[in-house]
Amino acid sequence: MEPYRLSLAEASHMIRDGSLTPTQLAESLLERIDRLEPDVEAWVTVDRGAVMEAAEAATKEAEEGRIRSPLHGVPFGVKDIYYTEGMRTTMGSQLYSGFVPDHDATVVKILREAGAVVLGKTETTEFAVHDPAPTRNPWNTLHTPGGSSSGSAAAVSCGMAPMALGSQTGGSVVRPASYCGIVGFKPTYDFISREGVFPLSWSLDHVGYMTRTVEDAAMTLKTLKSDVTPAKGMDDTPKMGLLSGYFKENASDEAWLGFEQAVGKLWGEGAEFIDVALPPSFGMVPSVHRVVMSVEAAAAHEDSFRVSPDGYREYIRGFISSGLLVPATAYLRAQRIRGVIIRDIHTLMRDYDCLVCPSTVDTAPRGLEWTGSPAFNAPWSLTGLPSVTVPSGLSEDEMPLGLQLIGRPYRELDLLEVAAWCEEKLEFPKEPKDTYTP
Amino acid sequence: MEPYRLSLAEASHMIRDGSLTPTQLAESLLERIDRLEPDVEAWVTVDRGAVMEAAEAATKEAEEGRIRSPLHGVPFGVKDIYYTEGMRTTMGSQLYSGFVPDHDATVVKILREAGAVVLGKTETTEFAVHDPAPTRNPWNTLHTPGGSSSGSAAAVSCGMAPMALGSQTGGSVVRPASYCGIVGFKPTYDFISREGVFPLSWSLDHVGYMTRTVEDAAMTLKTLKSDVTPAKGMDDTPKMGLLSGYFKENASDEAWLGFEQAVGKLWGEGAEFIDVALPPSFGMVPSVHRVVMSVEAAAAHEDSFRVSPDGYREYIRGFISSGLLVPATAYLRAQRIRGVIIRDIHTLMRDYDCLVCPSTVDTAPRGLEWTGSPAFNAPWSLTGLPSVTVPSGLSEDEMPLGLQLIGRPYRELDLLEVAAWCEEKLEFPKEPKDTYTP
Repeated sequence: MEPYRLSLAEASHMIRDGSLTPTQLAESLLERIDRLEPDVEAWVTVDRGAVMEAAEAATKEAEEGRIRSPLHGVPFGVKDIYYTEGMRTTMGSQLYSGFVPDHDATVVKILREAGAVVLGKTETTEFAVHDPAPTRNPWNTLHTPGGSSSGSAAAVSCGMAPMALGSQTGGSVVRPASYCGIVGFKPTYDFISREGVFPLSWSLDHVGYMTRTVEDAAMTLKTLKSDVTPAKGMDDTPKMGLLSGYFKENASDEAWLGFEQAVGKLWGEGAEFIDVALPPSFGMVPSVHRVVMSVEAAAAHEDSFRVSPDGYREYIRGFISSGLLVPATAYLRAQRIRGVIIRDIHTLMRDYDCLVCPSTVDTAPRGLEWTGSPAFNAPWSLTGLPSVTVPSGLSEDEMPLGLQLIGRPYRELDLLEVAAWCEEKLEFPKEPKDTYTP
Repeated sequence: MEPYRLSLAEASHMIRDGSLTPTQLAESLLERIDRLEPDVEAWVTVDRGAVMEAAEAATKEAEEGRIRSPLHGVPFGVKDIYYTEGMRTTMGSQLYSGFVPDHDATVVKILREAGAVVLGKTETTEFAVHDPAPTRNPWNTLHTPGGSSSGSAAAVSCGMAPMALGSQTGGSVVRPASYCGIVGFKPTYDFISREGVFPLSWSLDHVGYMTRTVEDAAMTLKTLKSDVTPAKGMDDTPKMGLLSGYFKENASDEAWLGFEQAVGKLWGEGAEFIDVALPPSFGMVPSVHRVVMSVEAAAAHEDSFRVSPDGYREYIRGFISSGLLVPATAYLRAQRIRGVIIRDIHTLMRDYDCLVCPSTVDTAPRGLEWTGSPAFNAPWSLTGLPSVTVPSGLSEDEMPLGLQLIGRPYRELDLLEVAAWCEEKLEFPKEPKDTYTP
């Protein structure tokens, strides 16, 4: 098998037992990028020289018996809002088109120190809001890959990288991962340092990432946070709180049908599903999320926006403008209601291994102008709960659907254990037809 | 000696050794209140029946050998913004003139469970802002006692209570305590629960209290928080960072002279004073404090204010109105600058036992319309640092001046140790001439 097809865990094992070198893996991925990038446009920057240099250093260390971590020698993509030392970081914005940070974001630093190799910077919507990146969905290049972590999702989905960093403020990790048929995971709010990640909305911003398997997501998390709480060990089969209401009302018929089919399959395998009624406070999620996000984005951009309003594209320009008009008392009211929502959801999930709902309202929309709705992910950004999407099936036009699982705060590995169980039972066909084997 | 003259610690010892009963102490204090209250107007509510009932219960327990805590049988005053079960709690507002809470504020509950006796509710400015209470300063009844904890300061100062609860958002504990020649203390932000204290500005509100001695303040703190960090033990003499700049510029000549005299006296006793330059960020304190406080007050009152604007007096009406106009981004900017100020002050105080400055801009202003400036206390509400005022001398017209000491976060007992040392050396004459011995 070509090394680019290996999951992170597979590559990791082979590097450790000496059957694969980091150099071979990096070469294979760079070739893959060369082949598919013209169609997919997932990358802003790939510095081949730097990649090979880092891969060769990792190879040398491995030969000397020095394996720094399970991610030693594994290349990864970095969303272009993460600071990378000496490497251009554009935020998807013309205002930062020439910006070269003098230090790495903390997450990038940790991964480099763990021996992982920065493969390059991936496309993002402008400042991680909605103005789209040029990236296309590898499952069908006429469709959006979703956003804002567009390049990271597309790259992982078509074998250009086994893992890529994203970030989620509304639905920017889980949604594109679901649209691209891969695993997207965001841990509990603030569990992973956001230092060096350009802020969009600091009380909502989450570090997250994409992989092709749940095992890879868990392996990455353990590398990022050695103190993560170990999984307590699942019973034979999971017990999940099934969310309908808001989710059923807002899902497309096809997305809801796909969700029911996935649930039916897991139920057939022994999973228990209990219908849970959403608390009344949940109805406030969209407006609370919008107020908090627009105000904090406006606060982050205010100075720059007043000087260079034309440096911003259309959607974010309106978003910042509206955020600047919100009175402080409205923002504080939104944050207070948010507290009620969080408390209610914590109460709600007490009796289940996790909550479950569709990952997205629909499959990836056709066209590249709109990166799709974050409506099913924003609640978990607002509440800060760990969430993960596992690919669950294909729509009639062969676009991926995902199952979104939501866990307890700081119990990421418990959540990923349930996710791995679902992943195994759902047997999702992992390869996009067209671009994956072009 | 009349029991009302006893400090909290003295009364506590006597109750414990059986030479004083809680009943005797309560009777003496009630008599004292009867005698002075027409002049001082410190109390909104004193329920004599309830006081005597609680005191007799404490006496009975003491006789049975059950002493609940060092505060067993000790009466205390409660600022009228603290919820008291079954006892009217007016917030100094006509809107709450008939409000009777169905539970105690957490602090009140802790003190009652410790065997202390609620003596009554003390006057507060309207909702703890600036519209004055009727209370007069026992040192000279033509002067304000300061605010917002006006009644608590006046009551403790003239022997109506050995201790009284106050609260501080700007300078509402330290300022009136200083104006009234007593000890006023507020611990680190959020160290003592604010549950059941009517909010003015939740990120600035501090529980605090007044006593006549530093020893009493420490004894009260240990009862409120059994887990308070023990004092590490001071060197022979304290080393203090002396603040001038902003403080010297804003102090009246008399207040600054009094401060220099107190410092000189302590220096003569061996204290070390090092001039510290305030960081540039300190210049932002007044505006940041005002934005945060007015916005959070507006948020707390918005619904009620829109329905009943006429239920508010003049100052707070303007304060809420202006808070309602502040854009969220301005509030967030203020909170961000606040973070810088806090960091800078933490750095500043690293090498000293505490910081020191005058407690107030001036002595208590003449007249009851204006409760005085919180300018020297607001910085420590904004930064959340523990602070205490120790009476340090008298002005020419025989009004008290105070020395304000500021400590490290969560090191209240270290701070009070230095304060006790200063108190001993300063030998402040504890008795207001006119009303104290009328």
